[in-house]
Amino acid sequence: MNLPNRYFAHDPAQQALAFRLYESIKTLPLVCPHGHVDACLFADADYHFGNPVELLIKPDHYVLRILHSQGVAYEKLGIPAGGGTAVEQDPRRIWQIFADYFYCYAATPTGLWLRDELAQVFDIDEALNSANAQAIYTAIQVQLSRAEFTPRQLYQRFNIAVLCTTDSAADDLAQHQQIRDSGWEGHILPTLRADSIVHIDRPDWPAEIERLAAAGRNEIHDFSSFLQAVEARRAAFKEMGATATDLGVVTPEAVPLPAAEMEVLFQKGRRGQISAQEAGLFEAGMVMELARMSSEDGMVMQLHVGAYRNHDQALYANAGPDMGADFPIPVEFTRPLQPLLNRFGNHENFHLILFTLDETTYARELAPLASYYPALKLGPPWWFNDHLNGMQRFFEQAIDSGGLYNTVGFNDDTRALLSIPARHDLWRRASANWLAGLVLRRIIDEESADEMMKALTCGLAVKAYGLEGYVPAEARIR
Amino acid sequence: MNLPNRYFAHDPAQQALAFRLYESIKTLPLVCPHGHVDACLFADADYHFGNPVELLIKPDHYVLRILHSQGVAYEKLGIPAGGGTAVEQDPRRIWQIFADYFYCYAATPTGLWLRDELAQVFDIDEALNSANAQAIYTAIQVQLSRAEFTPRQLYQRFNIAVLCTTDSAADDLAQHQQIRDSGWEGHILPTLRADSIVHIDRPDWPAEIERLAAAGRNEIHDFSSFLQAVEARRAAFKEMGATATDLGVVTPEAVPLPAAEMEVLFQKGRRGQISAQEAGLFEAGMVMELARMSSEDGMVMQLHVGAYRNHDQALYANAGPDMGADFPIPVEFTRPLQPLLNRFGNHENFHLILFTLDETTYARELAPLASYYPALKLGPPWWFNDHLNGMQRFFEQAIDSGGLYNTVGFNDDTRALLSIPARHDLWRRASANWLAGLVLRRIIDEESADEMMKALTCGLAVKAYGLEGYVPAEARIR
Amino acid sequence: MNLPNRYFAHDPAQQALAFRLYESIKTLPLVCPHGHVDACLFADADYHFGNPVELLIKPDHYVLRILHSQGVAYEKLGIPAGGGTAVEQDPRRIWQIFADYFYCYAATPTGLWLRDELAQVFDIDEALNSANAQAIYTAIQVQLSRAEFTPRQLYQRFNIAVLCTTDSAADDLAQHQQIRDSGWEGHILPTLRADSIVHIDRPDWPAEIERLAAAGRNEIHDFSSFLQAVEARRAAFKEMGATATDLGVVTPEAVPLPAAEMEVLFQKGRRGQISAQEAGLFEAGMVMELARMSSEDGMVMQLHVGAYRNHDQALYANAGPDMGADFPIPVEFTRPLQPLLNRFGNHENFHLILFTLDETTYARELAPLASYYPALKLGPPWWFNDHLNGMQRFFEQAIDSGGLYNTVGFNDDTRALLSIPARHDLWRRASANWLAGLVLRRIIDEESADEMMKALTCGLAVKAYGLEGYVPAEARIR
Repeated sequence: MNLPNRYFAHDPAQQALAFRLYESIKTLPLVCPHGHVDACLFADADYHFGNPVELLIKPDHYVLRILHSQGVAYEKLGIPAGGGTAVEQDPRRIWQIFADYFYCYAATPTGLWLRDELAQVFDIDEALNSANAQAIYTAIQVQLSRAEFTPRQLYQRFNIAVLCTTDSAADDLAQHQQIRDSGWEGHILPTLRADSIVHIDRPDWPAEIERLAAAGRNEIHDFSSFLQAVEARRAAFKEMGATATDLGVVTPEAVPLPAAEMEVLFQKGRRGQISAQEAGLFEAGMVMELARMSSEDGMVMQLHVGAYRNHDQALYANAGPDMGADFPIPVEFTRPLQPLLNRFGNHENFHLILFTLDETTYARELAPLASYYPALKLGPPWWFNDHLNGMQRFFEQAIDSGGLYNTVGFNDDTRALLSIPARHDLWRRASANWLAGLVLRRIIDEESADEMMKALTCGLAVKAYGLEGYVPAEARIR
Repeated sequence: MNLPNRYFAHDPAQQALAFRLYESIKTLPLVCPHGHVDACLFADADYHFGNPVELLIKPDHYVLRILHSQGVAYEKLGIPAGGGTAVEQDPRRIWQIFADYFYCYAATPTGLWLRDELAQVFDIDEALNSANAQAIYTAIQVQLSRAEFTPRQLYQRFNIAVLCTTDSAADDLAQHQQIRDSGWEGHILPTLRADSIVHIDRPDWPAEIERLAAAGRNEIHDFSSFLQAVEARRAAFKEMGATATDLGVVTPEAVPLPAAEMEVLFQKGRRGQISAQEAGLFEAGMVMELARMSSEDGMVMQLHVGAYRNHDQALYANAGPDMGADFPIPVEFTRPLQPLLNRFGNHENFHLILFTLDETTYARELAPLASYYPALKLGPPWWFNDHLNGMQRFFEQAIDSGGLYNTVGFNDDTRALLSIPARHDLWRRASANWLAGLVLRRIIDEESADEMMKALTCGLAVKAYGLEGYVPAEARIR
Repeated sequence: MNLPNRYFAHDPAQQALAFRLYESIKTLPLVCPHGHVDACLFADADYHFGNPVELLIKPDHYVLRILHSQGVAYEKLGIPAGGGTAVEQDPRRIWQIFADYFYCYAATPTGLWLRDELAQVFDIDEALNSANAQAIYTAIQVQLSRAEFTPRQLYQRFNIAVLCTTDSAADDLAQHQQIRDSGWEGHILPTLRADSIVHIDRPDWPAEIERLAAAGRNEIHDFSSFLQAVEARRAAFKEMGATATDLGVVTPEAVPLPAAEMEVLFQKGRRGQISAQEAGLFEAGMVMELARMSSEDGMVMQLHVGAYRNHDQALYANAGPDMGADFPIPVEFTRPLQPLLNRFGNHENFHLILFTLDETTYARELAPLASYYPALKLGPPWWFNDHLNGMQRFFEQAIDSGGLYNTVGFNDDTRALLSIPARHDLWRRASANWLAGLVLRRIIDEESADEMMKALTCGLAVKAYGLEGYVPAEARIR
């Protein structure tokens, strides 16, 4: 795909300057501090992907939900969802449906990522459509079968410097151990995701607590031993290279609760007798506890805020989570986070990165907060906001109050390894285009633009996540 | 008015491409699936409009409120509003006031619509001002008096393919019957608006229930017979060509309530003894019932959300509703609509179109929801958001997550027949300009732009409202 | 700094037209209807500023908080904040820190204001950095020491026509009296800020009530005599030239409460026994009372809405308010203001100007409300929104519904006298650029643009604040 100026403004001066900025960081590696690629892809040196449908459609809720919105039943895509329809078994027929509806992805980020991915990873320049669907399926399949098409070799080919996975706190990190033991030179680091042990009213919470205990060989019988087990897992993750933790919450409430009160809630959770309101309180208490732990062990705390999960309860019951039926709600940060920021916001060993699905909070709350509290930094556009318009809005709404240096660069946040270069490329182009516009309007000078371009590409992420050890000097900032 | 490139970006390449796209759909008809033109205009083949003030000022709350905001009393505009001032009787003096303040409409959509309307419908190219006010009044009056200046002939001249009115559920559709009986070839379809029968605490609700019963020759004595009467009216509307219903709500709460509970609320309403909170509950229950009915009879359900009505209570008491004192409030869709979407969102015979006055919901909630639930589509910018900036924001905030094909094209939503071409023209130009920008940034190719331009002009509206029977093949999409 | 087209779009036609519009109002004076410059600067004819740190860093929370966000302790900036670090005494070392971090201000309004201020006021064209920090410190210090570098002479040099300060209702206006007595021809007008007497649960409220009583030589023993004392201060402010009052509130609740109920709350406040909830009620009652007073004495009522103050309680305890730890929250205007607007919104002697920190309210609530109620006008982008992007959003979100003539032009809202020209210049450039874009898209004609440019520069502010007496005819609008 020979579109060297794609995504830049059409104005020739802006396009030329954006292109120069983009080219200036072309050799910098991809830094991937937060994402969902499965460590198992790297644990096995000879791992190969399945067919194009298993690679590109079934696991990608971005792709699935647009097909579903057009009335395509999940069963037609090979996914049992309790709909009564027969589950399609033939990947080529599923691929054909996808191609038939590919026009619906026009101007969506999923459409752009896939176009770039086909071109850059698979050397396919044609736009997917009903007529060429089967030929493109074949072309992808051929590539997937090649000996060198393994995750480890793609990691090198993509010039990835470090890639962080997301792992349950209860995970024993066996695959990460396997990667380490293999002697491979890639850097795959775990990230401790606390959701499954914090969301106390989920049906699988008691089992997760068992798994947590087993992973660390701890006994968990009360809130205090639970906290010790969490701290033990944090230490184990850190030992395995982790620099960060993560937690998803609907609203960012943080409430300091006495240990005795947390104990009562914890025991109710163990008995499966906790109300939704009590579970919310437990969660708000755990947000404080996790912040305290971060301030002690120095691991970066990430909070992903505002996703209301499993909205379509029938889908959830039949097909499980992460199928595309999660939706944002309005959120506030200023008041809910006050207890946490008052206790830890000025703590020099505490690092908090906030992600929002509610863009109205960029200018109203997040940039002002991040431009005061030293512990706080603002994460890039996430999920429904991870696209060209979302990035432009982020730049135009999150920088004025706080400055660029209170943000953390890019997260690809994907489970799709093959889409990683396309996602970073889009961010780099959006960044270059924004900076070029600032230079032409004389808001910044070109020297600042060069420095900010490097920061956006690698430096901010490296610094925020403490990944200096994995990148060359030119990928770091002061 | 010789401004062929008006509203397009100034960049020559974008302007040229936008113009080409705009020209490509020039011959496509106007499709008007939702609006407030009175059917009586078409029932009488010889209907003529009154004077320019009765046509352009008095019935248009967009016009009135800006004059009012500048301190012009409603009485000075010929409208008794309890203000104590004498009510102006001379339309030429009212017109003069309007002209004196016309500079206040600069850069407002009302200013643009009127400029286009004067130019295209009345051949008046001058900008209205104090000096030319009376001459322009005369020029308009001359046109209005011409024999061919009837709504039916304007319908043809404007190239309207189909025009949907909005009618109370309690309406007997006599005027629609008269249009049908007249044998005229225009397509004027009713839309069932449920507001007056759902808002149970309005003073005129009991009378509306009587009118509802009379219209369908039903007996209404309890909630069950009320529902039957509503279903009977829906059938009658459908028989008269209606494909859609409508309801305005402040917040989009949908609550499944047992019939027995609805019965209690219904009887309280009949006795005029229902509290505001109970009325809200009844409304939330009715939203579920109306969704259920839509899933059964296939009529599209429209929800217009977020207008707080009759804010200026003195104005309401003296001059009635729709005088310009309705204002938006913040709204949420994700959680309030969950019960409805869980029950009907995947139902293949259910079609829901959402309209919002809170633009923050485009990217945060509506596009994500519409890009998952097959029953749900997103309506265009409405009311306070129906202008060039509002359209641009809609394109930039509602398409990335959901794709264009989960939206429904344009609604002119006006009671002003003569403004309809100007409103559609503005939408077409905004669409062409947006698509041209996408092509130049290599986000879509020109072939997609052509297809999307046609969809935005007619195809999406035709499909969403089931109006295929009224348009030529090139006005439809796959 | 030879950047005559700075901040304009890069498109040559837009740049040229914006420049022409900008030049057309170049000789118009600066009108400053709302700000925080201390009257004492003008009371003493020979007032001189201290060193660059005392002038530019210590009093400016915009500057401080970005340094703090990067981990610089307030003590390192010479400010005792209870942090345990030694308080830096050497201004040159503080200045060096500021210069070291100046790259963090890239693309922030503070960075732009300072760049312009250095260039225009101090003739320093170099960008501040670590290497030139001390030389620039010296250059500023030399200027500050010059005999003609007094506030009064800067007022003339800056071509200020009128400058309004902000003064506690309890202030005795001694400095304003001193300015008046001095016979100096500048116009420094007080503004009555009611915060300290309205926020009844603040620890210093009883003392403020004493001060209020003393200032007006009133006895205050109950709510009624409190109101009389407030009215007396309003009269005294008006006599001293004030045309406006101000109040900061977290949410814009206005509740009409019986005097007896206010009396109870007032006495609780006097005893220091009022709850946060009761204090909120008292405040909502006072908003109504202040509106009533404004409708009686004709002083403009300003409401600054949405700042949650003193978020970092430790900083507040140690260093006091206005240190950079105030943050916005989401707000609503439509319903909370209904009681006030129903009572006074159509009153011809009442004038209310609203300021918001929540930009989502521009299009959703404020523009619709201001384009109906004649008493209501919309203030310009405030605080965290006072920058190029914020102005552009204001123009694109607040004008369509309401028109430009329901807004009030610019407020510099600063305590930094030397930044005033830079702030107005930025607004004028943003205005010219916006208008040029409208002309090129044929949304307005060039004649309207000229008129609107004048209105944005002076006319709207002059009219809204009743400052006609201080400006030449060309600075007024119809």
